Amino acid sequence: MDFYFSPGSCALASHILLEEVGANYRAHRIDFSQNEQQSADYLKVNPKGRVPALVTEDGILTETPAILVYIAQTHGAADLALMDDPFRFARLQAFNSFLASTLHVNHAHKGRGARWADDPAAHEAMKKKVPESVAAAFAYVEETAFEGPFVMGDGYTVADPYLYTVSRWMEGDGIDPARFPKVQAHMAMMASRPATLRALAAEGLQS
Amino acid sequence: MDFYFSPGSCALASHILLEEVGANYRAHRIDFSQNEQQSADYLKVNPKGRVPALVTEDGILTETPAILVYIAQTHGAADLALMDDPFRFARLQAFNSFLASTLHVNHAHKGRGARWADDPAAHEAMKKKVPESVAAAFAYVEETAFEGPFVMGDGYTVADPYLYTVSRWMEGDGIDPARFPKVQAHMAMMASRPATLRALAAEGLQS
Repeated sequence: MDFYFSPGSCALASHILLEEVGANYRAHRIDFSQNEQQSADYLKVNPKGRVPALVTEDGILTETPAILVYIAQTHGAADLALMDDPFRFARLQAFNSFLASTLHVNHAHKGRGARWADDPAAHEAMKKKVPESVAAAFAYVEETAFEGPFVMGDGYTVADPYLYTVSRWMEGDGIDPARFPKVQAHMAMMASRPATLRALAAEGLQS
Repeated sequence: MDFYFSPGSCALASHILLEEVGANYRAHRIDFSQNEQQSADYLKVNPKGRVPALVTEDGILTETPAILVYIAQTHGAADLALMDDPFRFARLQAFNSFLASTLHVNHAHKGRGARWADDPAAHEAMKKKVPESVAAAFAYVEETAFEGPFVMGDGYTVADPYLYTVSRWMEGDGIDPARFPKVQAHMAMMASRPATLRALAAEGLQS
């Protein structure tokens, strides 16, 4: 498989999971500083011009929640997605969907305001609210959704690398991780896993 | 099961699917005009203050992509989610995730700008871009993601009621559905299904 990422983006979640399951893949860095995600070559891989993208023998996959479950299901690790228990699987999917459609979206208003308005003053207004809107999403995780010590309780699932990935954005979004002690402990636990460290190293990132 | 919806919201997707699979459930309308989604009683159901929510015997589920797969999986209809084929399932999940985290989010900038900025001028700037940003999401569906005549090809899946639900928002978002003939034909096909008509009637909506 060929895996496309930009360092520290939400693609890190899939990158970590590929390492966790021992997948056979090549990783390719897409340089956002050079706008490479909009290059003709990359748009052939992902017409959305975003990461992650995973090129499989069957075709190309995008969207983090979908890729995470696919990696688990195709590496004899369906238990990492709790797929045999419809209710637990749905809770896991709801968690990942919340990260994708609420938490990540709130975060994206810091640097991607041009998606939703043309006025530079509106982009500034969006940036200003990011610490509040992203913190509200982490408060929901901390107080309601997170079971602990892993997202779904006692065992590692595909939600864990995803939560770890977005938790790494907190400080850059102006949020003190100490406000969310369960999430902070989860970050530390995740940062101690060899698979996490291998993915971080491959992206040139510090834990 | 108890199902909570607001008429015409993204909850319609799950509502239609509940009808398709012949689920045994009670539907409860949450009145957004009275801000009922923020009432103490409803926040006990869904602390996020949003719809849909599905109260099952095991607990409460939220987030459309998760609920759709759960309904299929628990009603002997896992084939409606293509769960036995990891690649096809991932494509289906990627489609639903795109609707949730891109198309719906773009649409939400029309009326929910307060989530992402406090400045009323920024809300106006967001509203102004909705016809463009939502149309761009439909262009991706039309040109790339949609297989036809159903979302995933020849058979009905849980992606179909979801696409139908968000397609109904087009005209209100200032977009002529005729710009997207495949999506428009899909809307007409979906609107002719008895399960769709039952869900619409329960929400007091016209097809």
